[in-house]
Amino acid sequence: MTTRMDEPVLLTGASGRVGQAILGGIGDDYTWRLFDREPPTDDPDHEFVVADITDETAVREAASDVGAIVHLAGDPRPEAPWESVLRNNIDGTRTVLDAALAAGVDRVVFASSNHAVGHYETDRKPDLYRSDDDFRLDGTERPRPGNLYGVSKAAGETLGRYYHDEHGLTFAAVRIGNLTAGHPPIDYERGQAMWLSPRDCAHLIDRCLSADYDYEVVYGISDNDRKYYSLARAKDALGYEPRDNSAEWDGDEKLSGGS
Amino acid sequence: MTTRMDEPVLLTGASGRVGQAILGGIGDDYTWRLFDREPPTDDPDHEFVVADITDETAVREAASDVGAIVHLAGDPRPEAPWESVLRNNIDGTRTVLDAALAAGVDRVVFASSNHAVGHYETDRKPDLYRSDDDFRLDGTERPRPGNLYGVSKAAGETLGRYYHDEHGLTFAAVRIGNLTAGHPPIDYERGQAMWLSPRDCAHLIDRCLSADYDYEVVYGISDNDRKYYSLARAKDALGYEPRDNSAEWDGDEKLSGGS
Repeated sequence: MTTRMDEPVLLTGASGRVGQAILGGIGDDYTWRLFDREPPTDDPDHEFVVADITDETAVREAASDVGAIVHLAGDPRPEAPWESVLRNNIDGTRTVLDAALAAGVDRVVFASSNHAVGHYETDRKPDLYRSDDDFRLDGTERPRPGNLYGVSKAAGETLGRYYHDEHGLTFAAVRIGNLTAGHPPIDYERGQAMWLSPRDCAHLIDRCLSADYDYEVVYGISDNDRKYYSLARAKDALGYEPRDNSAEWDGDEKLSGGS
Repeated sequence: MTTRMDEPVLLTGASGRVGQAILGGIGDDYTWRLFDREPPTDDPDHEFVVADITDETAVREAASDVGAIVHLAGDPRPEAPWESVLRNNIDGTRTVLDAALAAGVDRVVFASSNHAVGHYETDRKPDLYRSDDDFRLDGTERPRPGNLYGVSKAAGETLGRYYHDEHGLTFAAVRIGNLTAGHPPIDYERGQAMWLSPRDCAHLIDRCLSADYDYEVVYGISDNDRKYYSLARAKDALGYEPRDNSAEWDGDEKLSGGS
């Protein structure tokens, strides 16, 4: 196997939708240590740790000899209650960052979310989702979460900023849009504007693991005609080259812009 | 007593340094309900609730019939451990905001901190503290906390943003500088740059309680010659008119610019 790092990459929340997209795209390009609180349903292709992200000892052990961490674990529900996002997402991210620091891991890629900035849409929808609207968020704006889940993701970004500034950790937060397998959301302008195809997702995480940067907050969407998130920073700082566009979905079984 | 609101103002963390500065300056201008986890050492001049900020029932009861909340309670130590700021500062602020929502309180003033942006100083100190340096933070920048306490304050600001956007709460976060009684820090450039005199502190909170605004993040410092925090937003949006300046401290017993 040709790996792009000498050491394994720890992937937390590996069994979720984003984790599966990453493994589907770049599963063969790295040596992975998968981490999820649920045991795998099939025989896994990679080392697999079954533990909860709030289990400090388990997280520390899992991070002990890896080259980087892709941290996806957490309560993924936009409607998740505060107690859950406080514990799983905010405290869980702190646990991962602390484990990285203790183990000398110098790079963490964090799954942030469009919900961290959801309330920028409040006054402008649905114009914002139209391809002729040129409003863009670029990652330098302050968070305006659309829910408490989004608050927790914004807090994770800020924790990463602290670990970068204080401890030199390379940290990328990817504000993931709407990852759907197979095709973009149908008849849903917002979903099309923030669509992230599985292969673009895997490629973007690959760039987060490979590029030379310090601290970045980028948007994780495909190169959709409709968009209100700028891809400039992902392209310029990370070398992201998206291949998909929700507008090129022709209603048939595959993307017209397919590989 | 002439009060500026028909209903009392709940002041959490009332016994701390900022709380005492507020009461010293505008204690007679509002009807206060003081809240602190420590019983008052002297006979208090105002209604006093002894409870912990993490006690949801006590906070809800305290917020039940007030017109506004000034939320200062939390672990104030820059070196506070994560577990403490997670519980007292992040979860505690959520508890206060939730209590405000439940009680129909439409305004919360939050004591944020210079530590929420402490790492902007990393590469530029001590130049930043000099009166001939024109670098300014203005409150629109993303947080760069200098410690986990600062992370918790940034999270409180974001929680406030969510409650504003989602629920219409009027919310002001004041990134408080260095509040010292009597005189500015001596032989400490940074402290002089972020000095906030007690009377300017009280006046600024008064403006946060009285002005007409939506969501604001402002810096809470006096009008110091040395500064790297802009006062533009506090002046423009809130009508803040600071009277003190750390450079006018003449080494004598009172400020040369005193009232």
